[in-house]
Amino acid sequence: MQVGFIGLGNMGSAIARNLIKAGHAVTVYNRTLAKAEALKGEGAAVARRPAEAARGAVVITMLADDAAVEAAVFDADGILGALSSGAVHVSMSTISVALSQRLAAAHAKAGQTYVAAPVFGRPEAAAAAKLFIAAAGPAKAIATCQPLFDAIGQRTFVIAEEPVKATLVKLSGNFLIAAIIESLSEAVALTRKAGIDPKTYIEFLTNTLFAAPIFKTYGGLIAAEQYSPAGFAAPLGLKDVRLALAAAEAQQVPMPIASLVRDHLLTVIAQGGADLDWSALGQLAARNAGLPVK
Amino acid sequence: MQVGFIGLGNMGSAIARNLIKAGHAVTVYNRTLAKAEALKGEGAAVARRPAEAARGAVVITMLADDAAVEAAVFDADGILGALSSGAVHVSMSTISVALSQRLAAAHAKAGQTYVAAPVFGRPEAAAAAKLFIAAAGPAKAIATCQPLFDAIGQRTFVIAEEPVKATLVKLSGNFLIAAIIESLSEAVALTRKAGIDPKTYIEFLTNTLFAAPIFKTYGGLIAAEQYSPAGFAAPLGLKDVRLALAAAEAQQVPMPIASLVRDHLLTVIAQGGADLDWSALGQLAARNAGLPVK
Amino acid sequence: MQVGFIGLGNMGSAIARNLIKAGHAVTVYNRTLAKAEALKGEGAAVARRPAEAARGAVVITMLADDAAVEAAVFDADGILGALSSGAVHVSMSTISVALSQRLAAAHAKAGQTYVAAPVFGRPEAAAAAKLFIAAAGPAKAIATCQPLFDAIGQRTFVIAEEPVKATLVKLSGNFLIAAIIESLSEAVALTRKAGIDPKTYIEFLTNTLFAAPIFKTYGGLIAAEQYSPAGFAAPLGLKDVRLALAAAEAQQVPMPIASLVRDHLLTVIAQGGADLDWSALGQLAARNAGLPVK
Amino acid sequence: MQVGFIGLGNMGSAIARNLIKAGHAVTVYNRTLAKAEALKGEGAAVARRPAEAARGAVVITMLADDAAVEAAVFDADGILGALSSGAVHVSMSTISVALSQRLAAAHAKAGQTYVAAPVFGRPEAAAAAKLFIAAAGPAKAIATCQPLFDAIGQRTFVIAEEPVKATLVKLSGNFLIAAIIESLSEAVALTRKAGIDPKTYIEFLTNTLFAAPIFKTYGGLIAAEQYSPAGFAAPLGLKDVRLALAAAEAQQVPMPIASLVRDHLLTVIAQGGADLDWSALGQLAARNAGLPVK
Repeated sequence: MQVGFIGLGNMGSAIARNLIKAGHAVTVYNRTLAKAEALKGEGAAVARRPAEAARGAVVITMLADDAAVEAAVFDADGILGALSSGAVHVSMSTISVALSQRLAAAHAKAGQTYVAAPVFGRPEAAAAAKLFIAAAGPAKAIATCQPLFDAIGQRTFVIAEEPVKATLVKLSGNFLIAAIIESLSEAVALTRKAGIDPKTYIEFLTNTLFAAPIFKTYGGLIAAEQYSPAGFAAPLGLKDVRLALAAAEAQQVPMPIASLVRDHLLTVIAQGGADLDWSALGQLAARNAGLPVK
Repeated sequence: MQVGFIGLGNMGSAIARNLIKAGHAVTVYNRTLAKAEALKGEGAAVARRPAEAARGAVVITMLADDAAVEAAVFDADGILGALSSGAVHVSMSTISVALSQRLAAAHAKAGQTYVAAPVFGRPEAAAAAKLFIAAAGPAKAIATCQPLFDAIGQRTFVIAEEPVKATLVKLSGNFLIAAIIESLSEAVALTRKAGIDPKTYIEFLTNTLFAAPIFKTYGGLIAAEQYSPAGFAAPLGLKDVRLALAAAEAQQVPMPIASLVRDHLLTVIAQGGADLDWSALGQLAARNAGLPVK
Repeated sequence: MQVGFIGLGNMGSAIARNLIKAGHAVTVYNRTLAKAEALKGEGAAVARRPAEAARGAVVITMLADDAAVEAAVFDADGILGALSSGAVHVSMSTISVALSQRLAAAHAKAGQTYVAAPVFGRPEAAAAAKLFIAAAGPAKAIATCQPLFDAIGQRTFVIAEEPVKATLVKLSGNFLIAAIIESLSEAVALTRKAGIDPKTYIEFLTNTLFAAPIFKTYGGLIAAEQYSPAGFAAPLGLKDVRLALAAAEAQQVPMPIASLVRDHLLTVIAQGGADLDWSALGQLAARNAGLPVK
Repeated sequence: MQVGFIGLGNMGSAIARNLIKAGHAVTVYNRTLAKAEALKGEGAAVARRPAEAARGAVVITMLADDAAVEAAVFDADGILGALSSGAVHVSMSTISVALSQRLAAAHAKAGQTYVAAPVFGRPEAAAAAKLFIAAAGPAKAIATCQPLFDAIGQRTFVIAEEPVKATLVKLSGNFLIAAIIESLSEAVALTRKAGIDPKTYIEFLTNTLFAAPIFKTYGGLIAAEQYSPAGFAAPLGLKDVRLALAAAEAQQVPMPIASLVRDHLLTVIAQGGADLDWSALGQLAARNAGLPVK
């Protein structure tokens, strides 16, 4: 399939690579050209402007935040003006519900189709084509994209016909991860202060009731106090929790744990931890318990 | 092995049964005699007083709360006065850290050994001998008890030599479950209000990053709004979170998510939900979001 | 003095009236013309567009929210284009810190002066010229405005030279009021459920350590469960707490009580209380305690 | 009147002194004898045991906590065994609702009368006979005590006939103070980080809507970052908030702000602030905002 791919960060590069490997004709665009050039050797065509990546049946965006997506779509040389009628824009980025709604409306008005297909997984999972995909959009468009999803993930879940619902599933999912990190942080602070070895403790948890990867990953980081380098930095975590809270406020839904996690991430950053992984909530919990921290 | 077993609720009966099946000579005691008599047919000897169940090498208690354990141990016909020197009291109940410390001291003074070995798992897991056991105590005593643990659980984790540490692991584990229930409750309230089907949503979560039994169990209950009959009633959940908070306060460890969950469980009960499962945190989250509740 | 006045809600009408009484030549503008016409009899000139009210030395805006202020200032017929060089725009509205910064920059660029002078007090205080004014701006502009402030308030506090600081003082002040309402709500729920008469209780508080008007006003409303008609509706309270949280996030300052109050106001609204006074936090506290509510 | 007075800390000594000045015949008892002897010169008789101070019509206790009151009342040489039939025990201490209930029952059984009359005010107010008294008990007993209350306070409020209700009013009042301290701490952290002078800010607040002594006292301490020496140390504040939460849990009333303040006081103490005033919540708020602290 002729596919455009915009946004070649850690996640995006890995995903684009898997699309190429699967035999698709991929035209990549990245604001910093070097990252696009890097994929040339693997068979990618390189676009100089987002619009050039939007000439096929599908264009995928995988960008850092709302502002980046807005620029790629709505700017003069953006994909909205370039995408042909009937073609599909698949947004894999974690964006606000408000922007997702705006994209749906704008593409519909232009006779194009918008699919939200945010992914779950860290860069390692992206490289291994083991992402989970939460897709929402018109059934026909999802069917069109399915071979692409198959090339990059281990499983696709179709959430609904309205794209914005997949956006919300992604935001709520990241909220759940943040809530688990905070909960583990508190539990580890308690047991560590009582003299229980954190690694033994996490091993117990992750081999019994809490045998999910999420507990292994974050429990391990907290037990080892390994908050740097950041796999997902605290400010990105704060951004996603803020987007979840904004979506919830728009729906009139209080989410007190999200509020609490937001305040703690803000504290982590205010105390100098902007470069730390969001699991540095564990460091804050330790500090609040009067424990020595690395 | 000659084993006494005190406390034949849902969990205790299932555990005692598995001990008998494994060939141990089990003397059971329960305040309501009928529950003890019910095990006679399976081979149990029936004690009329706790002391009578404490004549073997090991006596196990599996009781509802601190008061019940205190009575079984410290009363005139309790196990403290009856247990022979060198014999072991294994406490499987979820009790306070303070009581666990008191038990350790009292048994040590009497020349007896105290092991804390609380278990994780619902009654179904107990019946299937699939419990997880968090054991702490002197290595020799743990070794003595290992055949008993093998008869009732799928795996034993030795946490430490000090029994109180296993008590704390259990309390912190129940806190984590409560935190997950509350987090799921908020996420489901948000997505449901936005029009996403709760069952689809939970299915997505539990087949991707959150593929642990705990998410399946509680996500399923919340999605189905099935809070009755209670597997673990809200007041029991409140009790355990309260015990975790008390242990944390004794260690000077703030646990804001525990405080939040405590307040919500209290609200569930104050609003008439004392008979509901503690997953009725999901009902409260729905109500706070203005959603209709069953 | 030649003064323009834009925004004739409950607060604005009372303030404008006091300016006229004090002998100033006041030109009023309101989107709904009728409210402006109502002041004609008292001596006001009536403008048809914001720009027409911006021809004197000072123009005051007293509007509901950011959007209304933006329209009045930045629209084609807004005050930014009409205000003469050296003239002063006094913003009395409760707006975001971000908009206050934008106004300061825009007026400076246009050779005009911006003063933020939000007021504290309910409509009764405005009518009685008993408002408190938190003013910030260049000293010379404040001096120019002082006769106007004297005509409408009982005292002016000059916070700083940077206008945005007065905006922040206003937002933080409204946060404090909300925090007091929530705290009183919880205290009344506790004592009421224990059988203490709420009116006796509030009388005790407000005649001892808590003898400030704010406790009398809100304690009285909560004790009487009189949440309607709204003096300041829950959605307005939510808006101001949200603006305080946004300002705090921009400064990297966690405010957990603000987060908690935000969640509770959201719950009040989600449960159908959008028309209630923000003191309906008292109703929510009562409901969460399982108390009957009016 | 013949009055016994037990507990000569900062508060108790000042109160006892005012009773003597007002012409009452006061027998004082204190565990550390020196503090009792110090009042001899002013006309006090000195008791060697609590019982000796309980031979008049009224005995007042003003002690640090539940344990101290229990010892003074229930010990072999305590006041319960010594007080004559019809005599009155006035408890001015801040104690738990549970102990207050126990005292009411024990005195009633012994044919004695129990009055709870906790006081509001710092030591300076006690010295100046300016305390506020929240009294509850049988009307006749209150009438008997009125001359004593008049000698030590500026005003007595009769809350109810059941003594426990005054105990609860005191606990809820201390909760309100704690809530105000925390709220001010957050507001000062926000405005200070934005460059607003804290003293100007507090002066503004306390001269406008928040013109109550409580705001002046605590706002002043937070603005000056003067947390030592402690007027009321953080652990005492934590104790009172814990008692309020316990009373609330017994009534099934959630108090989320109390939970939040409890967690923050615990953090202050865990981080080494056990000797600081409870207004050191202001230091924690500053630290959480990344501000430098003294």
